[in-house]
Amino acid sequence: MFKKLSAEFIGTFWLIFCGCGSGVLAAAVPEVGIGLLGVSLSAGLALMAMIYAIGGVSGGHMNPAVSVGLAVAGKFPARHILPYILAQVAGATAAAAVLFLVASGKASFQPGGFASNGYGDLSPGGYSLAAGFVAEVVLMALFLFIILGSTHRRATKDIAPVVIGLSLTVIILVSIPITNTSLNPARSTGVAFFAETAALSQLWLFWLAPMLGAVIGAVVWKVVGEDG
Amino acid sequence: MFKKLSAEFIGTFWLIFCGCGSGVLAAAVPEVGIGLLGVSLSAGLALMAMIYAIGGVSGGHMNPAVSVGLAVAGKFPARHILPYILAQVAGATAAAAVLFLVASGKASFQPGGFASNGYGDLSPGGYSLAAGFVAEVVLMALFLFIILGSTHRRATKDIAPVVIGLSLTVIILVSIPITNTSLNPARSTGVAFFAETAALSQLWLFWLAPMLGAVIGAVVWKVVGEDG
Amino acid sequence: MFKKLSAEFIGTFWLIFCGCGSGVLAAAVPEVGIGLLGVSLSAGLALMAMIYAIGGVSGGHMNPAVSVGLAVAGKFPARHILPYILAQVAGATAAAAVLFLVASGKASFQPGGFASNGYGDLSPGGYSLAAGFVAEVVLMALFLFIILGSTHRRATKDIAPVVIGLSLTVIILVSIPITNTSLNPARSTGVAFFAETAALSQLWLFWLAPMLGAVIGAVVWKVVGEDG
Amino acid sequence: MFKKLSAEFIGTFWLIFCGCGSGVLAAAVPEVGIGLLGVSLSAGLALMAMIYAIGGVSGGHMNPAVSVGLAVAGKFPARHILPYILAQVAGATAAAAVLFLVASGKASFQPGGFASNGYGDLSPGGYSLAAGFVAEVVLMALFLFIILGSTHRRATKDIAPVVIGLSLTVIILVSIPITNTSLNPARSTGVAFFAETAALSQLWLFWLAPMLGAVIGAVVWKVVGEDG
Repeated sequence: MFKKLSAEFIGTFWLIFCGCGSGVLAAAVPEVGIGLLGVSLSAGLALMAMIYAIGGVSGGHMNPAVSVGLAVAGKFPARHILPYILAQVAGATAAAAVLFLVASGKASFQPGGFASNGYGDLSPGGYSLAAGFVAEVVLMALFLFIILGSTHRRATKDIAPVVIGLSLTVIILVSIPITNTSLNPARSTGVAFFAETAALSQLWLFWLAPMLGAVIGAVVWKVVGEDG
Repeated sequence: MFKKLSAEFIGTFWLIFCGCGSGVLAAAVPEVGIGLLGVSLSAGLALMAMIYAIGGVSGGHMNPAVSVGLAVAGKFPARHILPYILAQVAGATAAAAVLFLVASGKASFQPGGFASNGYGDLSPGGYSLAAGFVAEVVLMALFLFIILGSTHRRATKDIAPVVIGLSLTVIILVSIPITNTSLNPARSTGVAFFAETAALSQLWLFWLAPMLGAVIGAVVWKVVGEDG
Repeated sequence: MFKKLSAEFIGTFWLIFCGCGSGVLAAAVPEVGIGLLGVSLSAGLALMAMIYAIGGVSGGHMNPAVSVGLAVAGKFPARHILPYILAQVAGATAAAAVLFLVASGKASFQPGGFASNGYGDLSPGGYSLAAGFVAEVVLMALFLFIILGSTHRRATKDIAPVVIGLSLTVIILVSIPITNTSLNPARSTGVAFFAETAALSQLWLFWLAPMLGAVIGAVVWKVVGEDG
Repeated sequence: MFKKLSAEFIGTFWLIFCGCGSGVLAAAVPEVGIGLLGVSLSAGLALMAMIYAIGGVSGGHMNPAVSVGLAVAGKFPARHILPYILAQVAGATAAAAVLFLVASGKASFQPGGFASNGYGDLSPGGYSLAAGFVAEVVLMALFLFIILGSTHRRATKDIAPVVIGLSLTVIILVSIPITNTSLNPARSTGVAFFAETAALSQLWLFWLAPMLGAVIGAVVWKVVGEDG
């Protein structure tokens, strides 16, 4: 279990350091900045790489909602959920702290939202709570459906991390203007501690909506895909 | 059959929600917007992921023209074409409805074309009906040729969804200024219901041209590639 | 042989229609244009897809310099070089013609360079003949080295088209400001017929340099990699 | 050994020519430039391709810190480290020289930093020495962890070059504003010779930090992942 939790800690560290770091540091560089497309690729490819690297150790969840969804689908023991979530939140928070340290190395640095998630006033594009909730639930449900579908068949299992990582890229491409894209409570929590905004007060949505979405996705998969 | 049609519904929902959603929500964000490149990657990678996720259930068509083309090539029973098309159009329409709901969560939202397809006055770049027709037929013919070619040999079958998804990306990179890229009658139909423009009146082209292209692609493949 | 040449014709058609088409039609759309990055992905992914689709029929060269290089490396019969080159040039020219037809469907269309290759006055960034020559020779030598290296070992053969296609993407990312990136005499020839510039008068370089590079790449591979 | 060192020379040549070349030549082209996202893809995909091409010959390190890290992890004989490093630095320097030659073919060419790495005054975004040091150590440690993790299991070994190459892309997306992204002493050294700035005086950091990171990554992997 020590190895599994260490792997989840390291994996989530990488996912948040690279996914949120690319947004904080490189997205808005004048003229040549990587933009939201660069951020979405950074997060998706970071996830892909770590599923390959630690998949054999811990399964490579790096996301409390994924751990819960896999448990609902019967692919992960429920008694491991809590320790996994603790390791994931710890990894995300450590990543946010190191990212804050590095970003502070620029004299003009202002944390601002610090890549945190939000709705209403804290939504990047000014989207409502309802829009954020629907987007996070629907996208998480389909994300879990894809995770279960792509890891289900032996023939496609080896390429599943590519599918899962690049699906996160797609999800960010769609929803980053709405909530800055969570779908991952650990990601939302880790950076919220460092935001200058009221991100912590909106954190409940980014635990509730992804968890709900993951449960829906797992149930839909069991009905539609399981025996396919 | 219930599982197959549910899979096509879910798959087409994802493809249209992500492909069109990235265009409606994220393409034109000032400074850091994902642009047409982001839209093309979103749609292509969304298609790739769902072929992996539901390929074992329904084959993962998510496109009436693909279902027809595969039937012409003898890879799909003709009697399943109609139910598949109904599930695909229903999935696309549901995706457009949810996308409309989410997009409406921004106070300043104006649907405009809402990612619909068009020619002449409704072409993003002002391209003529003839240009749109030729582009949709030629690209769909080659798309079906690639679908059949990449799924034909056992050795490359497992990577075929990557090839097919990224070929859609390529197709969008070329043709999005012309017709906003259809090649998929379900995609065109779903969003047209929500456009403020006269998109519905041009829908015939986006059923006719992709279907014709798919038939041509299937026939060319049978002549050139079948025994390769 | 009819099937092989048809496959090379179709494959080269796709490669030039998508690679050059994305540049002519979509690269410079205001605000959301795909830019040179979009063009490089379009060409590279188009090549990847067609190697998967027609690789089992013709080998999937789609490039006279590749055919010559593979012959030098002993992987392709020399007597097939000429018919392959004719099919490739025919496919590229047909693609350029259809692209011209589609592009003309926009009232304000001006062919200009029409994605042709050039040096000096016709170089996109104003690079000299010498710079263009060196870039085309060096990049083609390494491209052929990668083609031979990635198709050499049984274990990596199935993923070689991904490697080869994305290496073309890399090559374009580096050299598009220099010569507009040829490395493919068929590509250069097909579009030159439709350029309003003196592209035809510079065509010799885009036959000479890629051919020379391919021969160098094949020889280097035989010395360094063959028995690896 | 001649073949191994030749392969490392050629591979590092390609990596630096394409990774740094895309930055020097194409990143900042007005309107359609590839930006930092294009540079990160160019470098990552160049690395991926060469690991496939020369992996069977030399292992495909192309980076002194990777050679050292693999030796610490017991995957590479320590007595080969020095010759490998010499071949890598020679390849990187040759690539920088040819790139300088090509770039000089534009009349208005000014080398400036010439894609060199730096901190403080020489950091692209004005980041401090401490920020640069932390970023290079942390990212290199996780990069080596991913290299070891993805090559560890037989099932994922064939796709490991994709994982490793695209992880470099992710790393650049995060850290290019900080140090211009080294993680590779050979890359830093090769271009520093041609910079107009004082890049050579800061080179020590780009040998020290990646080497330290690689050792940390190898040790962490042995504790967390080895038996997974």
